[in-house]
Amino acid sequence: MGRDPRYDILFEPIQIGPVTAPNRFFQVPHCTGMGWQYPRTLAAMRKVKAQGGWGVVCTEYNSIHPSSDDLPHPYASLWDDSDVRAHTLMTDAVHEYGSLAGAELWYGGANANNLFSRLPGMDVDSFPNAKGHPYQTRAMDKQDIKDLRRWHRKAALRAREAGFDVVYVYATHGYLISNFLNPRVNTRSDEYGGSLENRVRLTRELIEETKEAVGDRCAVAVRFSADEEIGEDGQPIFGERREMFERLADLPDLWDVNIADYSLEMGVSRFVKEGALEPYMQWVKSVTDKPVVTVGRFTSPDTMVSQVRRGITDFIGAARPSIADPYLPKKIEQGRLSAIRECIGCNLCYASDSIGVPLRCTQNPTMGEEWRKDWHPEIIKKKTSEARVLIVGAGAAGLEAARALGERGYEVMLAEASREIGGRIAREASLPGMSEYIRVKDYREQQLLEMPNVEIFRESRLTVDDVISVEADHVAIATGARWRKEYYDDECFRPIARGEALTRVFTPDDIMDGNLPNGPTLIFDGDGYYMASVIAERIRADGHAVTLVTPSDSVSDWAGKTSERWRIRTQLHRLGIDILPSHSLTHFLGDEASLNCIYSGRETKLPVQNIVMVTARKPNEGLYKALCLRLENEKRPFSLTRIGDCEAPGIIAAAVYAGHRYAQELECEVDLDIPLVHDRIDVGSKG
Amino acid sequence: MGRDPRYDILFEPIQIGPVTAPNRFFQVPHCTGMGWQYPRTLAAMRKVKAQGGWGVVCTEYNSIHPSSDDLPHPYASLWDDSDVRAHTLMTDAVHEYGSLAGAELWYGGANANNLFSRLPGMDVDSFPNAKGHPYQTRAMDKQDIKDLRRWHRKAALRAREAGFDVVYVYATHGYLISNFLNPRVNTRSDEYGGSLENRVRLTRELIEETKEAVGDRCAVAVRFSADEEIGEDGQPIFGERREMFERLADLPDLWDVNIADYSLEMGVSRFVKEGALEPYMQWVKSVTDKPVVTVGRFTSPDTMVSQVRRGITDFIGAARPSIADPYLPKKIEQGRLSAIRECIGCNLCYASDSIGVPLRCTQNPTMGEEWRKDWHPEIIKKKTSEARVLIVGAGAAGLEAARALGERGYEVMLAEASREIGGRIAREASLPGMSEYIRVKDYREQQLLEMPNVEIFRESRLTVDDVISVEADHVAIATGARWRKEYYDDECFRPIARGEALTRVFTPDDIMDGNLPNGPTLIFDGDGYYMASVIAERIRADGHAVTLVTPSDSVSDWAGKTSERWRIRTQLHRLGIDILPSHSLTHFLGDEASLNCIYSGRETKLPVQNIVMVTARKPNEGLYKALCLRLENEKRPFSLTRIGDCEAPGIIAAAVYAGHRYAQELECEVDLDIPLVHDRIDVGSKG
Repeated sequence: MGRDPRYDILFEPIQIGPVTAPNRFFQVPHCTGMGWQYPRTLAAMRKVKAQGGWGVVCTEYNSIHPSSDDLPHPYASLWDDSDVRAHTLMTDAVHEYGSLAGAELWYGGANANNLFSRLPGMDVDSFPNAKGHPYQTRAMDKQDIKDLRRWHRKAALRAREAGFDVVYVYATHGYLISNFLNPRVNTRSDEYGGSLENRVRLTRELIEETKEAVGDRCAVAVRFSADEEIGEDGQPIFGERREMFERLADLPDLWDVNIADYSLEMGVSRFVKEGALEPYMQWVKSVTDKPVVTVGRFTSPDTMVSQVRRGITDFIGAARPSIADPYLPKKIEQGRLSAIRECIGCNLCYASDSIGVPLRCTQNPTMGEEWRKDWHPEIIKKKTSEARVLIVGAGAAGLEAARALGERGYEVMLAEASREIGGRIAREASLPGMSEYIRVKDYREQQLLEMPNVEIFRESRLTVDDVISVEADHVAIATGARWRKEYYDDECFRPIARGEALTRVFTPDDIMDGNLPNGPTLIFDGDGYYMASVIAERIRADGHAVTLVTPSDSVSDWAGKTSERWRIRTQLHRLGIDILPSHSLTHFLGDEASLNCIYSGRETKLPVQNIVMVTARKPNEGLYKALCLRLENEKRPFSLTRIGDCEAPGIIAAAVYAGHRYAQELECEVDLDIPLVHDRIDVGSKG
Repeated sequence: MGRDPRYDILFEPIQIGPVTAPNRFFQVPHCTGMGWQYPRTLAAMRKVKAQGGWGVVCTEYNSIHPSSDDLPHPYASLWDDSDVRAHTLMTDAVHEYGSLAGAELWYGGANANNLFSRLPGMDVDSFPNAKGHPYQTRAMDKQDIKDLRRWHRKAALRAREAGFDVVYVYATHGYLISNFLNPRVNTRSDEYGGSLENRVRLTRELIEETKEAVGDRCAVAVRFSADEEIGEDGQPIFGERREMFERLADLPDLWDVNIADYSLEMGVSRFVKEGALEPYMQWVKSVTDKPVVTVGRFTSPDTMVSQVRRGITDFIGAARPSIADPYLPKKIEQGRLSAIRECIGCNLCYASDSIGVPLRCTQNPTMGEEWRKDWHPEIIKKKTSEARVLIVGAGAAGLEAARALGERGYEVMLAEASREIGGRIAREASLPGMSEYIRVKDYREQQLLEMPNVEIFRESRLTVDDVISVEADHVAIATGARWRKEYYDDECFRPIARGEALTRVFTPDDIMDGNLPNGPTLIFDGDGYYMASVIAERIRADGHAVTLVTPSDSVSDWAGKTSERWRIRTQLHRLGIDILPSHSLTHFLGDEASLNCIYSGRETKLPVQNIVMVTARKPNEGLYKALCLRLENEKRPFSLTRIGDCEAPGIIAAAVYAGHRYAQELECEVDLDIPLVHDRIDVGSKG
């Protein structure tokens, strides 16, 4: 199969100042949770993207000076020669595949943690720290501005020395340069504040100085926000952005354009769909002759072509789609569209970086494992025997195990108790806003269809005898988990109701099974991620009064890490769902729930007729345990392993990862006692 | 001056199994925010403690296997040979001063993040993750327990190989082993659960196996909690802990005993004072012949002696006091009691680790800088000229700059506008619960008294002419900052009242000046650390109705990092202070405040007569700016630098650090463009 000619336009080379991108696929700068802490992990990850056909592959944000330090969020840096050496690992790898490497220079201002360097950050004025730390910035004086420009120039020179082809001036996302541009923020009375001309001055100087420093060999890109803010109706408010842009339009070699609201720019799929930035891009291409890149979680080649043809953008910018499928360009080029592993917009990548650990991906379990485990999203070692593998359960873990083992060449039997495969993926994807999650199943199902060595058995609930009679060499149990009805008090699971009242205690599984409550309902969220809010939305849609109670101070606290927490709570308010944070649940009598303030202990009685408990899950480990009982380890004619939620309930990404790990490690020598290679300092042996 | 004989007992050598501690000063295992990520930083920091006389110096928690991984909280590890090499840096340094080095082995169970290794953690049952992540543990089966024991043994052997003298079995703090011990948590039906004998089994096995593995050369310590929980009245509930302890009493070589409640064990000084664990220790020494160590934020040698003489403990355990003053033992030994830099119990050390960055200390600005800046808490390079230094302002920054410059030998003039020195330290220390903060001033004032080359000028508010007339070679402006009355809306400062109403808008400075509101008062907290809650407490003490409003979902959100958030909110409830989170403040009309829910935008009117704004601060930069205007940089006969809050308002620790940095760097060559040396991977130059 070759490329469909209608996609040819995506594979045109595009000139960017002194360099030429081999195609229109542009991995824009994105965080990784790796940065300077994991240089080998980082380089190996970026390498796979170049290998997969991304014509431009950029770094994450590169601090130009220690007074802009963002730990615990890992970031890259261009502070000194050791950075040059670290980045060269990446640029060499990217160049190996004919792609361009880009570096984004960054100064955070009030929007940086500065807890590692302990230096005061500098900003337009003495502002409170935007990350919530009890520190303020230093208001920049003339000398500070001179210093900043010198640091920026030096960092650009280091980027060139490290082999980068594109160097970014980063003027968005609430960091220092965007604060200079912002009329509400920049009320300086000197030549860098006040009028539009003055507020643009620093950006102009940085672009010109960067071009002057590295323009002989590197393209200079500017990351810029097209809008000022987003109106209540969701429409862009451009304010003076267009005028600002026009003043700078032809200075850089490339414009990387995004928008003011991060939770829309990289919104979760529950709230934001593909191509969401288009309304914001309407005038951009008309006012510059320079190439433009923008993002939109593009995974459809038709959408991509449409964006280019209609003059919205020149490059198909991507962060998340390039994480979910580093081979997205190559698959389009090879006409293998059904092999594309589409981003589901869960923002787990974003969460990893928010937390401060290397990023992971629900769809791509190899993400972050390219160096330390030598995993690759498209290449996997072949089988080492003629062994036959039975996988019980076709949910996230089972599907991925079957797919990866199938790719390894093993004969795989995948048994699923129900008619539909997908397990919790399919069930959760049917809840409000969650439809894109189905891609986790769809991609794997599609791949399995093309594998003659993998057979799926539907409606096949296996007993111990069934498993034994299959005579497989390896058996993986991937039977998932079910939500519990109990309250977890940080030590143990406690029942909250008895008798008839207990019949009106529901779980998310009930809701997904179509067993819905009738009448006023309390959703108790002890989980903290998306599920409780989605269930609340589902029940509210039936017209019932809904109250969401959580012991946390925040609704959907963990979803703060994926950037969706704010939107969730706003959505709940909009739907008329009552919210009661900081309360635990004591018991439910059938018409009334007893709640306690977790700080004061004060009791509140809430009249409700139903409760949905979103707390914890119980592994479906019956089959696994029965097998262990029947056949002790030594006497078993097959290896027996539980994977995914039936081993340890977690998020879908964890189940996919568990399935992949099982497949990668089957019949390979793995030291269970030392399972990780470390991308860290080795101080060397003594003497 | 020599040692006071009444302290002799603290300097007795104590045998611990096969090794002997040179004295009773025992730095118990404590987190550092460094761990395996910063091995050189870590070793240099621990070294200074041995140098300062701590007879035993321990590591932080050492993961025994990647399935117990705690990033983004930095932790140490004993996974492989590279760990042995890294730890050897520390043990060599500790042995150099004749001290013992101890390693704490750790398996987190449900109480570990496991986001870096991506392996499921294991625990007694399949529990929700205790750090709030949407993952559960795997319920350990027999094979898992065997694996765990093998990993523990292997880690112990690595510890011995790395040169440690003491190896810990870590059976507290809600980690895996303590879950096995806990009757509410451990409901297993096998031989590891149920009865006391069964629940103790794993701990017993680990102690015995560790002794068997390394007991020839290393002492085996057990960290154990003396109580089961803390009663409502604050009194210990021992439950079966004593019986449990008795069954193990003579197995290890040392008992490190603490308590169930972390926020008491290492509580902030606002709520918990020196020696708080004593009620919990009452029976411990009576039921074991082995030496015992416990903590209590001991900084008074008299308290220490009393603890030993009364048979509470054998060793003076310390984490925080050893951070604030690594030379605490040596200063007692040398009879230099007034030179002790006492811990103020602010828990900023704890906060650093919570956040995931190397720890810092309010009292000891060299903490964490021993390796990368070559700073030392007691040794500083001598002056390089006969220059005279004028420091304007005797707050946190000015006092520390004067002290450190005085130690360097410079002639220093410290000018303070008011009669009292200490600046904000003295002012804040007068607020409820904050008294120990005064130690930041007291230590420095005491030191300055002994320096003939430093002169303090009180009631000396300097003008530009005054500064010039001093004819100093260097001038540091440390004039602090004042709280603002405005609301900060994440972009700019907005007034919230006009006219008469504005006279009833207060700031923390007003309260500290004794200008107190009368009648119902709203405290608006846009700061998020301790100040708003302390002010609320102060005003409530006058009998006024007080409501604390914050745009955050949590009260004193940042204080969650120091472990005091929970206690703050509980205290506010207890005092009858109303709390309204998630609300912004629009305006105040004099009898009513308008508040908006930050999610729904819904407006609430609150009838109040006063508002205290705890939002942000404005640097007192008048003198600095006037000097800059009068004498341009080139024409200045002195160097001019602003330090501390008048440069960038922050916490007290940041001001002390700024003062120290100024002193360290004065007349030294510092590359402002590359101010940091990096304790990180250097991939080496190409080719």
